[in-house]
This record gives sequence, C-alpha cells and structure tokens, in this order.
Amino acid sequence: MADIAKPYLAFLGDGTSPAQCKTAFGLRDWCRSDVVGQYGLAGCAVDLGIPWMSPGDAAAGGARSLVIGVAPVGGAIPESWWPVLFASLEAGLDIVSGMHTRLASVPGLADAASDGGRTLHDVRRNERVFGVATGRRRSGRRLLTVGTDCAIGKKYAALAITDALHSLGVHAEFRATGQTGILIAGRGVALDAVVSDFVAGAAEWLSPANDSDHWDVVEGQGALCHPAYAGVTLGLIHGTQPDALVLCHDPGRKHLASFPEYPIPDLKTAMDQYVAAARLTNPQSRFVGMTVNTSELDEPARTRLFSELTARFGLPACDPIRDGAGLIARRLLEEFSTEGPTAGGAQRG
Amino acid sequence: MADIAKPYLAFLGDGTSPAQCKTAFGLRDWCRSDVVGQYGLAGCAVDLGIPWMSPGDAAAGGARSLVIGVAPVGGAIPESWWPVLFASLEAGLDIVSGMHTRLASVPGLADAASDGGRTLHDVRRNERVFGVATGRRRSGRRLLTVGTDCAIGKKYAALAITDALHSLGVHAEFRATGQTGILIAGRGVALDAVVSDFVAGAAEWLSPANDSDHWDVVEGQGALCHPAYAGVTLGLIHGTQPDALVLCHDPGRKHLASFPEYPIPDLKTAMDQYVAAARLTNPQSRFVGMTVNTSELDEPARTRLFSELTARFGLPACDPIRDGAGLIARRLLEEFSTEGPTAGGAQRG
Repeated sequence: MADIAKPYLAFLGDGTSPAQCKTAFGLRDWCRSDVVGQYGLAGCAVDLGIPWMSPGDAAAGGARSLVIGVAPVGGAIPESWWPVLFASLEAGLDIVSGMHTRLASVPGLADAASDGGRTLHDVRRNERVFGVATGRRRSGRRLLTVGTDCAIGKKYAALAITDALHSLGVHAEFRATGQTGILIAGRGVALDAVVSDFVAGAAEWLSPANDSDHWDVVEGQGALCHPAYAGVTLGLIHGTQPDALVLCHDPGRKHLASFPEYPIPDLKTAMDQYVAAARLTNPQSRFVGMTVNTSELDEPARTRLFSELTARFGLPACDPIRDGAGLIARRLLEEFSTEGPTAGGAQRG
Repeated sequence: MADIAKPYLAFLGDGTSPAQCKTAFGLRDWCRSDVVGQYGLAGCAVDLGIPWMSPGDAAAGGARSLVIGVAPVGGAIPESWWPVLFASLEAGLDIVSGMHTRLASVPGLADAASDGGRTLHDVRRNERVFGVATGRRRSGRRLLTVGTDCAIGKKYAALAITDALHSLGVHAEFRATGQTGILIAGRGVALDAVVSDFVAGAAEWLSPANDSDHWDVVEGQGALCHPAYAGVTLGLIHGTQPDALVLCHDPGRKHLASFPEYPIPDLKTAMDQYVAAARLTNPQSRFVGMTVNTSELDEPARTRLFSELTARFGLPACDPIRDGAGLIARRLLEEFSTEGPTAGGAQRG
C-alpha cells in the first residue's frame, strides 16, 4: 500500500472503554510524536491524555490524516461518524481505517475524497499485487518475532527491539504485517489479506535488500503451532529469511486463545520448529532472545522466570512492556557484529 | 464455487501441441465418461481421439458445459475464440475456464450468459468466502498427497488412489485443490487463490464430516520444502487433518523446479517433516505409500527402485501413471480397517 501521511489525528468515536480504542492507545504508545491530538464524539468516555482538537484545528496544526482508533460495535461504520469523516476530508486530511468494512462503503465518501485530492486508506486491504517468492538471499539483516500463540506480544516485541536498536545507534526499521502495526509505521503489508500463493513473496517485498549493517525488525503473525494460521506464519518466515528470531511467550496461557483443544507447546519444541522452518531460506537463522508477558507476576517471580529462561536457553529474556528490549538488542549486536557481510544478490548462505 | 455442470465439450482452440492442451488431455484421461466430445478451430493440430462436435451438436447430445482445454498464448482470451463462446451460450452450454483471465473480460459475454440463464465458471476464482479453521476433528477418513516439490504428481496420485479405492468398493471422493483437478471433479477449491488466513479453513470446508468408512482423497499443493509455497501446503495439511499421507517424488529431479538453489530434500527428512506438521491437527497421521515418476526408467530400474523404497520405508511404492495405485489403496484398507471409528463432532484424536 501507499505510505500513510503523518502526523495523525486519532478519532475515538463514542468509544467507552480503552479496549475498544486499543488502536488509538497503540498509536499513542508507539508513535506518540506522530499523533497531534485526539477527537471524540458526544458520549466518548476515553482519553488518551493528549490534546483534544477538531479535524480543522488538527489540519491547521499540521495533521495530515484522521486515523480511526476505535473498533465500531458490529463492524460497520456508524452513521454518527459520517459527518466527521466528511469534515476531515474538507479540512484536508486523509482518512485511515483498520476496519474490515471499507471506508468507501460510506455513501459519497470516495467521491468526496477524490474530488478533494485526498486518500482513503483501508489498511486491511493490499492495493499492491505481490509476486511469488524467489527464495534468493538478499543483503541486509532481518529479525522476526515469532510466538507460542497469536496475540502474544509479537508486534510490541518488534517495536521495542526497533527502539532499543535505535538507542544503540543501529540503522533499523520496524516492518509491519498487521493493521495496527501498519498504522504505527505508516506502511506495511496486511499479511492476512494476501492471497496464499504470495505470502512469502509479500514478505520478501516488505523487507528488501539493504545495507549490510541494516536491520529490518519484522512483526510476526500467527504461530507455527496454530491449526488455523500456521501457513501464514510459515510463509512469513520463508519470505523474511530471518537472521535472528525472537520467541514471544505468555507463561500464564495454557492453551491457544480460542482453541482450548490446543495446548501451548513446550518452548524447546516450539523453538526447534521455528529454527528448522527458518533454515530452509536462511541456513544461519537462530534465536537471539525471548520476550515474556509478566503482567501477572510480582518482581521476585519475574526475576526468577527470566533467570530460568536464560539458564535453560542461553538467551536474554525480558518483558518489553515493562523493561524494554535493550537486552535483546545488545545480544543481537554481539552475535552479528563479529560475522562477515550479509548475502547479497542471488547468492545463498 | 458452485458445482460445474457435466458432461463437457472440450474446446481445443487452435492448439498445436498436446502440452498446450494438457487440461483437455487431463479431462480425457481422468473423467472420460464426462467428456462427450472435442471442438477445435481452424489450425487446431491436436486430437484427443474422441468425437468432434460443434457446441450445438454437443448440447443436443447432452453436454452441459464447454470447457476451455487449451492454454492461450499470452494468457488473454483470443478474439478468434469469442464466436465459439457466444455460440456455446446460445446452444445452452455453461462455459468453464481455468485461465487467469476472467471469462467476463470478453465484451458482452457476462450479459449473454446472464440473459440466457447460463453460468461462466472461472475455476481459479473462489466465489465462496471461507472461515477460519476450527482445528476440531471431524468424522470420516482423509488421505492427502504431499510431495518433494510442486508439479510432481500429487493430483495424478490422488486421482489414481481414488480410482483404486472405488475398484475395491470403498466410498471415496477425490477433493480438488487446483484448477485442473476442479475441472475433473466438477467442484473443489482453488487453494492458491484463497486469502492466507483462510487456507486451513478452506481445507476443512473441502473435506467435511462424513461416514466413518468414507475416504476423502485430497489433492496436495506445493511442498513444505518450497521457499514460495510451503505456507499453502502447511495450511492444507492442517485443515485436511489427514489420517494418511502419500509422498509423491520424482527421482530424476535434483532441485526444485525453477528454484535451482533449493535441492530436493532427502525422502526421510521430507517425510518426518510432513508427519510432524500433520500431527498438530491429527496425532495419528502417518504415511501409507509413495508414488514415483518412473517415466525415465526401464523395467529393471523401476523394479529395483520400488524394492529399495519399500525396503527403506516399509511402504508400498508405485508409479500411478504406469501401474495405478492399487498397492496403496490396499495398504490403506489394511492399516485402517483394524482401527476403531473416526473422531466425530468436537472430539480430538
């Protein structure tokens, strides 16, 4: 898809809970400097703690896109939102949505955008047609976050690792593969919407050849142990050709979310499976760290868990929400600063 | 997609080589009784060895669909074909195409079909929207053909095994996942066109709950060792939940077709990988046979190869094109006739 114009005005609709507005909170937490303000309708009970402003004021203050940061009940775009959408276009803002329903389903909105030279971004749709993966190595380094389930922190881990690499002065880019990640990055590929034959090809496109010391930090999707989504995960692994893998885990989860018949796999088993899969397209692929959701643990339990994981796997372990991912970023540099330049062009391994 | 109305009239266009008309030959070889005749244009140099007839004569003789059995040079539908397509609709035939180009790209064809109450089938497109896989076991038995590469005989193996099961009086259905397979079966899912999140769900839909002694024989796609298509393969495996796997191999192939950097994997390695993947959703999944392309081998070499494979893996091995698949069908029944009824409803393994 085309890059999304930043900065954003975050639209909260008449959202009544932070859970309903988690996209807006994700933007505030992960690209605060790209969000000039928030805007809500009567009944909105959510506050991001940033300035309130109308679309007109936001545009005057430099905003370039209104981002829908709330999930509408029922999935469709409520009529009560329509005036805000038209007003935003009139004010000169593009409109960005991560909903299943297309923005163009609002009567007249596509014409209004086109007349005003504005863009409607439906980030769940890919305008681009991807090709079949080549399987050929390319220059630059890549890290991919993988997990023991869906929705287990792969996006947050990738964002935290990117931040930590930037703090260390490393050239690194977060590569988004899901809707919220795309809003944060302003670009990316909604991988779950790509036709199956082209998933690995889309992953190759998303993290193209780069300088040999440049890191793409790619947001993982699904899980290899997942009965519905493992195919997407495998295509993403093969196309990314990750030099480095990071496992994301939640020790409180006993089975896959919404799939009670499927237990969370043993960590060693899961990691062996990921490495074996990744080595098809990058024979040097290996784990460099683990992230763990420790929100339910007190400080002694957290410390004990990290120590156990590090002792068992020889890898740094952290909770990126509470601790950042500096440990993993440093391990990454230690591991790879001593290696030669990355593969380039059509070479393999 | 909706079922395709049989029997067929096979359209050869101005095809000059059997390779160009391989879809038509596939139909003749695998559903001969569903093909009433063939029709070609001036310049057609291919002969299926079945009666020549016009669309009108075919319709009068009971045909219900014209199937495009030739691959046009360049991919688009040549203007020289248009009169045949309109004449077929007028004669009361539906039109079926496995081309990338939609039939509706022919000016006026969609309207002509609609006016006459006829259907245009583009078998590479799925009209149906599939859901996310459930991962729950369902009653009935399933066999899936898998391979050491793409285009290595998975469709032919599945068709031959289905035929052999029928000969043994077993209730079995061939389940098509690719365009030619769909033409042969008259139904199926073009798996490579399904959005990635729903591949496993589409595979569940394709081989639904059935009688406990019923076998679905599912056409495999891609290969787990393939850098571009492994994701499709894994989703198909997880959704099919195969009780039985059959490995398709070509001993003359040293690397993946069009991917010279990727060697054909060792058979044992490939089989271990398939079984491990399949056991996520069916913990009893195992191999029951191997098919081998022996077109380049003389009789002593063939016999030696089959013996070696059977000695090494303890599995029947055959070339379905030359020998049929009776060995595999008999092994299937030996293996599974002694087992209890299959899982039903929401139970797991």
